[in-house]
Amino acid sequence: MASLQDIALSAFINILSAFVFFVAFAILRLQPFNDRVYFPKWHLKGIRSSPRHSGKSVTKFVNLDWRTYLRFLNWMPAALRMPEPELIDHAGLDSAVYIRIYLLGLKIFVPLTVLAFGILVPVNWTGDTLEHLDVEFSDIDKLSISNIAKESKRLWAHLVMAYIFTFWIYYTLYKEYKIIAAMRLHFLASENRRPDQFTVLVRNIPPDPDESVSEHVEHFFSVNHHDHYLTHQVVYNANNLAKLVDRRNNLQNWLVYYENKNTRNPDKRPRTKTGFLGLWGETVDAIDYYTAEIEKLLKEEATERERLVIDPKAIMPAAFVSFRSRWGAAVCAQTQQSSNPTLWLSEWAPEPRDVYWSNLAIPFVELTMRRLIMAVAFFFLTFFFMIPIAFVQSLANIEGIEKVAPFLKPLIEKEVVSSFIKGFLSGIALKIFMIFLPTILMTMSKIEGYVSISALERKSAAKYHLFILVNVFLANVIAGAAFEQLNTFVNKETPNKYPVIVGTAIPAKATFFITYIMLDGWAGVASEILRLKPLIIYHLRNTFLVKTEQDREQAMDPGSLDFASSEPRIQLYFLLGLVYSVVTPIFLPFIVVFFSLSYVVFRHQIINVYDQEYESGAAFWPDVHRRLVIAMIISQLTLMGLMSTKDPKHATPVLIALPILTIWFHKYCKSRFEPAFVKFPLQDAVVKDTLERATDPNLNLRSYLQDAYVHPVFHSKDTEQPVAIDEEENNPLVPTKRNSNRSTPGGSKYGSEVGSETEY
Amino acid sequence: MASLQDIALSAFINILSAFVFFVAFAILRLQPFNDRVYFPKWHLKGIRSSPRHSGKSVTKFVNLDWRTYLRFLNWMPAALRMPEPELIDHAGLDSAVYIRIYLLGLKIFVPLTVLAFGILVPVNWTGDTLEHLDVEFSDIDKLSISNIAKESKRLWAHLVMAYIFTFWIYYTLYKEYKIIAAMRLHFLASENRRPDQFTVLVRNIPPDPDESVSEHVEHFFSVNHHDHYLTHQVVYNANNLAKLVDRRNNLQNWLVYYENKNTRNPDKRPRTKTGFLGLWGETVDAIDYYTAEIEKLLKEEATERERLVIDPKAIMPAAFVSFRSRWGAAVCAQTQQSSNPTLWLSEWAPEPRDVYWSNLAIPFVELTMRRLIMAVAFFFLTFFFMIPIAFVQSLANIEGIEKVAPFLKPLIEKEVVSSFIKGFLSGIALKIFMIFLPTILMTMSKIEGYVSISALERKSAAKYHLFILVNVFLANVIAGAAFEQLNTFVNKETPNKYPVIVGTAIPAKATFFITYIMLDGWAGVASEILRLKPLIIYHLRNTFLVKTEQDREQAMDPGSLDFASSEPRIQLYFLLGLVYSVVTPIFLPFIVVFFSLSYVVFRHQIINVYDQEYESGAAFWPDVHRRLVIAMIISQLTLMGLMSTKDPKHATPVLIALPILTIWFHKYCKSRFEPAFVKFPLQDAVVKDTLERATDPNLNLRSYLQDAYVHPVFHSKDTEQPVAIDEEENNPLVPTKRNSNRSTPGGSKYGSEVGSETEY
Repeated sequence: MASLQDIALSAFINILSAFVFFVAFAILRLQPFNDRVYFPKWHLKGIRSSPRHSGKSVTKFVNLDWRTYLRFLNWMPAALRMPEPELIDHAGLDSAVYIRIYLLGLKIFVPLTVLAFGILVPVNWTGDTLEHLDVEFSDIDKLSISNIAKESKRLWAHLVMAYIFTFWIYYTLYKEYKIIAAMRLHFLASENRRPDQFTVLVRNIPPDPDESVSEHVEHFFSVNHHDHYLTHQVVYNANNLAKLVDRRNNLQNWLVYYENKNTRNPDKRPRTKTGFLGLWGETVDAIDYYTAEIEKLLKEEATERERLVIDPKAIMPAAFVSFRSRWGAAVCAQTQQSSNPTLWLSEWAPEPRDVYWSNLAIPFVELTMRRLIMAVAFFFLTFFFMIPIAFVQSLANIEGIEKVAPFLKPLIEKEVVSSFIKGFLSGIALKIFMIFLPTILMTMSKIEGYVSISALERKSAAKYHLFILVNVFLANVIAGAAFEQLNTFVNKETPNKYPVIVGTAIPAKATFFITYIMLDGWAGVASEILRLKPLIIYHLRNTFLVKTEQDREQAMDPGSLDFASSEPRIQLYFLLGLVYSVVTPIFLPFIVVFFSLSYVVFRHQIINVYDQEYESGAAFWPDVHRRLVIAMIISQLTLMGLMSTKDPKHATPVLIALPILTIWFHKYCKSRFEPAFVKFPLQDAVVKDTLERATDPNLNLRSYLQDAYVHPVFHSKDTEQPVAIDEEENNPLVPTKRNSNRSTPGGSKYGSEVGSETEY
Repeated sequence: MASLQDIALSAFINILSAFVFFVAFAILRLQPFNDRVYFPKWHLKGIRSSPRHSGKSVTKFVNLDWRTYLRFLNWMPAALRMPEPELIDHAGLDSAVYIRIYLLGLKIFVPLTVLAFGILVPVNWTGDTLEHLDVEFSDIDKLSISNIAKESKRLWAHLVMAYIFTFWIYYTLYKEYKIIAAMRLHFLASENRRPDQFTVLVRNIPPDPDESVSEHVEHFFSVNHHDHYLTHQVVYNANNLAKLVDRRNNLQNWLVYYENKNTRNPDKRPRTKTGFLGLWGETVDAIDYYTAEIEKLLKEEATERERLVIDPKAIMPAAFVSFRSRWGAAVCAQTQQSSNPTLWLSEWAPEPRDVYWSNLAIPFVELTMRRLIMAVAFFFLTFFFMIPIAFVQSLANIEGIEKVAPFLKPLIEKEVVSSFIKGFLSGIALKIFMIFLPTILMTMSKIEGYVSISALERKSAAKYHLFILVNVFLANVIAGAAFEQLNTFVNKETPNKYPVIVGTAIPAKATFFITYIMLDGWAGVASEILRLKPLIIYHLRNTFLVKTEQDREQAMDPGSLDFASSEPRIQLYFLLGLVYSVVTPIFLPFIVVFFSLSYVVFRHQIINVYDQEYESGAAFWPDVHRRLVIAMIISQLTLMGLMSTKDPKHATPVLIALPILTIWFHKYCKSRFEPAFVKFPLQDAVVKDTLERATDPNLNLRSYLQDAYVHPVFHSKDTEQPVAIDEEENNPLVPTKRNSNRSTPGGSKYGSEVGSETEY
């Protein structure tokens, strides 16, 4: 078991690496040629123009003003300075609420830390039990509940604190849910007009022998939403076309690359090979080859476009149906249309840029099967991933390595190396596993067929959370503990003993998780701000693919908050903090440092860097809340398990009420606040409708909604043309700030491109 | 353990008692003076008039035609003859669907019986294991899975049959759900106009400092359901008034009783005492006393009525809001009104006669607390009831009685007595417990605050079902088995071993449950048809309280299907049938007999006797389906538990898929059919609205809905006046057949009593 010294060394290493990251960031961000990497958000908003336009030649690229380097941490107060309403306006509600998760962490854990250090640490420290037992123990154990004797009166302190902590968390969670529900409602109420406010996505439209899908939709809604129905947009299965467009864009990049090469070195025409990645095959003139290939693809595209318009099979039994008023849309989204509940399924349309187009083409009947299969696949993924992790965990301790590779023994037994192994290795093994995961989970969610990017992210996050629970939390607690405690209880592992097994293993794993927090939390967050990957990619693109200022705009990748993979990780810290709050209070400061650091860093990032792909209005909060409640229940069960070995007579009856109360608390919050996240109240719809009629009586809603939900590939030909942007800017009603016309061709869709070649 | 002979004796006794009931029924029903007990349904419909009007004096009371007695079972084919559509028309969808539960039992268990007897019984019988073991066993055990050796190849037959049975049940359940959903939709579509089709119950209306509740509702819905809102009816807290009316009705009965007494014996004025129930206190003239008391109450009523109209506190923050069209009501019922999801809560209004008025006065904020408290109370009720049952069970076997009362030994050891004890006593002990229960559970549901009688019944049924599961099924299996198997596994009772414990105990309890089915099922159903309690009460009332023909109408109590207590009992038989289908196939014929007998008896009852209080359109079916699925899962888990002791290597992996499949099946059915039971599709609403506009363009909906949702006490003064009925009959649009103006004062409320003294 690691001692306080090991922890201190490991903390020092991690603080040092965080410090290095911050210094590197401070230097890099001040260089003008990195400006688009570290301040893309401002460039996208048009507030910060490229520094290359003005100034002398050298200072265009390198910052020579030495005074700016001295204040290398001054981004931190700057990040905290922007008030929340402005932040919402600047970065959207999703981002503003996302960083409130970190703030919530602080609100929960700072008082917990103070209380725990004020009461539990002294109680534990003076417990004097470990010294009388014939076991090895470290200073950390002396600070933990392990130092309290069985059936000691001192355990009452822990029981009472468990209740105080729980009620404090209820209070903060409830308040936070309330605030965020209010923020969401206020945000929705003050939002500008958006196509999704008027539009409902209708799926599983039954086939009609006499009518086309479009006519059928028209007739159905004219009858059943008489007075309210306005127009609709059928969904084309344009996945093929989208693939062609993607391929063409890829070739276009290569063409630009070779053209740039040619410009710099006009004597030598660049050449390429026709095979895979230009690695083999016939050698040809690169520019001619790519021009011809693009030409070919353009023709294919044109044929495919024509086919889509003519072929009735290209039309999916789904449509975006728009209404005359928000009231009409709210009604349609919340009601059942047909007596067969699997037909004419209506739900709120996602925001146009939030639509995940490829999944709209999935027939509805397939969905049940797909979800069942993915559930089974996820089960296997979760439980078979455990095997390698458990194996690596068992290696990642001194004894394990000595057993497997005895020749390393002299090296390992040096103080520094052994601390390093203890502090780092076990954390890194886990980390490597985790890097591959979010992509797999996102793919699984896509197969499940959700139709909006926000839903995909939420579902991936749910999977990732479960995975982390089983494979980071449980696997480390049980498998690790099992090796250490010589397989004593592996054989009697029965479901109802789980809390006891986990509970008793918990104190022993404190060191491991402290290390994990420092490596993954502290250093991970600090490295986030450096943006090493976007930095490299930007400079590569800038060198090879950029011809015009507009290209440079596209080369910059602001990235976005990756909800699907980062939120479940925060949840792990919440879980660890809650589990250890009573058991090993020394754990809490590490959590608090993590949350403070993350809060500052991510606040900086959403202000200066990230550009969200979509705006869901904090629709993810019920998920966050639910997972926090799950973490509470787990922590309460493990505490019960642990305490039942310490003081079975009192602990179980006293603690049994906690999980029940928590479930009730969850139900109460759910009924109180969740509707604000899934429904749209008619009262608010009426208010907005009335307001709009008053301010803009002549609005032509039909033409406004005309092309809002057209598949982005039908727009793609125009993404290069600035005319689309101009037209947008001429329309003062459209929230232009969200229409940054960049990388994804889906960027320009509101009201632009009137009269494209497709017939709607 | 009981032998086949014991079972046969017990079966003979029960068949005999059933036969006695049927003969008694046959004789009693043919007597004209019992006509209103055995054919009240037809009297209520006005098709069968009182036989006393015509004929000679003796035959008015006694049937002297001996030929009719010979065909004493001819009500059976008669009961089966009425086709289902006519039955729905005659008795309502609720009743028609209710007896389909019995039919479903036959559909499930007849093929299961055939298969089990064709395959499993021969396999078990030739197993030859028990004879080689040194244990006691009966013939029933020889027919059960107990006769198969451990890890025998024969167990594969049981595994395969478990799958075949499961898939057969999936098929029947799915088909049944589909049929009933279609029946419900067809029923709703072809229904006559009813106030609840246009009306939504809105609860938790926020207080407004400037407006009364009524004005506030008016304004809110005029704005937010512009074009659709028609009128509303606020809810008065008339519970006090209702109590006064009840008391007055009670006194009225006594007055009539004494007046009758006086008429028969005019010389002697009847006297009574003023104390409780006339048992003590001052002796006074009865007629004068009651007349004065009634007078006093009438005055109190008048004051209370005035107070209700004036006092703003008497108005609850709830209202019945009516719309111009079914579409408008459907929209309001399915959408969220206000941004605060706990305000302006809208739900479909129950049918007027289905409203449970007293609960409308409960403030909404109380509901969460009430439900939490009731959940805890129900938990304690369920688990502490178990103690006396287990005690009685342990007594109700020969050894137990001999131990407690050794002096009874010589009596008990006689063959007949011991069979009687085995066959009867254990069943009766249970039965007595069960009689008190439904009332308690209904009271608990009322405290929980549901606002319709149908919801109350469904919730009570859910509680009763859980109670039966724990206290009849589990308690008998485990506690009983625990005594028999000498406490071998009581000490290692851990939750995950539960299926194993239950599974292994199951075969041993087959005899007990067969007895239970015969006593509770066969004889119980046969006694149902005799209607002993209503028969006695009718004749008592008829003798003492009846003055006019109208009084006699009220004296007859047709009763109704008591969903809350009878459906959970059917579920017990389903559960037992499913649990024993693979384990002890000899069990199945008893189940089949129960379902056939019940089907015939209840079909007869709903045709001739019962008069439903309300019509929910088979809204209970999702509950029935869910409980059947629960029964399937329990049977699969117990089978897994049993098989894991027989052949752990194969059984568990083969059987583990069954419960998972079942849960998935349930989810699928739920998403496919449940919306038909909780929502009202807009398409259907539009169809009905359009049809109505075409057939009845001049309908004054406002006056039609005027008094539909007025608290029944505001009508009660007029219940005695036939004028209300006349007015109803003059209005051809009202489905008069449902408006039988009897016992409950809530009977006459559609369109009657225009211009009552209250202001709406």
